[in-house]
Amino acid sequence: MIVIKVGGSKGIDLDAVCDDVAALVSEGTALVLVHGGSHETNLVAEALGHPPQFVQSPSGHTSRRTDRRTLEIFEMVYCGLVNKGVVERLQRRGVRAIGLSGLDALLWQGPRKAVIRVVENGKTRLLRDDYTGVVERVNTELLQLLLSQGYLPVLTPPAASFEGEAINVDGDRAAAATAVALGADTLVLLSNVPGLLRDFPDEGSLIRHIARVQLEEHMDLAGGRMRKKLLGAQEALNGGLRRVVLADARVAQPVRQALAGRGTVIE
Amino acid sequence: MIVIKVGGSKGIDLDAVCDDVAALVSEGTALVLVHGGSHETNLVAEALGHPPQFVQSPSGHTSRRTDRRTLEIFEMVYCGLVNKGVVERLQRRGVRAIGLSGLDALLWQGPRKAVIRVVENGKTRLLRDDYTGVVERVNTELLQLLLSQGYLPVLTPPAASFEGEAINVDGDRAAAATAVALGADTLVLLSNVPGLLRDFPDEGSLIRHIARVQLEEHMDLAGGRMRKKLLGAQEALNGGLRRVVLADARVAQPVRQALAGRGTVIE
Repeated sequence: MIVIKVGGSKGIDLDAVCDDVAALVSEGTALVLVHGGSHETNLVAEALGHPPQFVQSPSGHTSRRTDRRTLEIFEMVYCGLVNKGVVERLQRRGVRAIGLSGLDALLWQGPRKAVIRVVENGKTRLLRDDYTGVVERVNTELLQLLLSQGYLPVLTPPAASFEGEAINVDGDRAAAATAVALGADTLVLLSNVPGLLRDFPDEGSLIRHIARVQLEEHMDLAGGRMRKKLLGAQEALNGGLRRVVLADARVAQPVRQALAGRGTVIE
Repeated sequence: MIVIKVGGSKGIDLDAVCDDVAALVSEGTALVLVHGGSHETNLVAEALGHPPQFVQSPSGHTSRRTDRRTLEIFEMVYCGLVNKGVVERLQRRGVRAIGLSGLDALLWQGPRKAVIRVVENGKTRLLRDDYTGVVERVNTELLQLLLSQGYLPVLTPPAASFEGEAINVDGDRAAAATAVALGADTLVLLSNVPGLLRDFPDEGSLIRHIARVQLEEHMDLAGGRMRKKLLGAQEALNGGLRRVVLADARVAQPVRQALAGRGTVIE
């Protein structure tokens, strides 16, 4: 079992990803696809007059400010535009794809952060109307049922809070939670960089291999989105996966290349 | 088995519909919910600078012009904003809802109209880049599987063409096709009118009952959206349903009232 997460950053070639996924499925590989949609969300949010905002936590992490209106725009892009676009691409390649958000059938469930601390101009402030959280439970029963019937689940945030509210969750970490829950062997995290870079953004400084025990000491090299990926990788390995590959989705055969070890392999 | 379609026109109270649906589900009623999203789609399309266009067929029917960009906006609103909004409402009411478009798992499949004829300023013109069609096949196997596991399917257009493209289909007729395929007893079509009106828009002229054999002669009373509803009703009854109820979704307990016969009952 392989879980593949493809990010939603600019430059990602979803057609190439779907070509690879369709080929793998036709060879009998069991897999689940997870996707993001951040770049398109930013564009649509701008166009709808509700531009994206990002907030910083006291520990220095940046995340999307998700008020209720942002959550709705997020759902439009992630669950509508991108999810159905991926499902359509896969159907056209003969794959029995089924697109679901984490809300559906409570596929991804977890606690909502009722209050988040953000730092603005050096001052800490509390936000109480933010809809974010983290995935703690995965409805593996439904995923296994769909897989057993020959369907390919195509999953996307948001998740559901334990109170049944839609919450924005990090896609990489949700993919990791899904991989752990399904007892997957490999998690592939595709984005618009070739992997973890020693000297960001110098792509020649790609780190090709990280032993699991060294993961912690590599955390400091990772900024922004990459930090969440390493956190997801750590959670996946702690949860029993054999390996996590961080790889580039801007190239031909992105999934094949990742599975062949092109990128940053953590095991 | 009951199939309920709730329209996407202005004034519809989705909370009231979900209250009723949750109550019916908790009483053990097997049901499938189908929804639209036309009003919100118009608003978002305007805001995104791609305002809705409607075309007229030579026989006088009006339908949404669905070029590729419109289809994407349509997916954002129907599959994203509205579908996940309904699923979230149902989850919060304790229903195990699962939101799916007709594309997912090829739930709704049918031929795309490769060429459509439209009348503009009295002249007939051919459109070749329109993505519309009609549902001919329903994946009842998956729907039955989900129902048997206690899930409530929440379905929405688009459907899939036989070539795997996303196509805009009429939601009322798709709901009728679903009801027929599942061998349902009753189809409820909720919208922002109380039913079929003898003198539109005089709501005092509601027609309370139509015998199946009289349906054809009532077709002339129906303009616009109502015509599609009567066509859906006809297809449902021809396919073996016992009754179709056209009713108002702007009132308290809209589903209960429809099932109690408030509206236009066709049987």
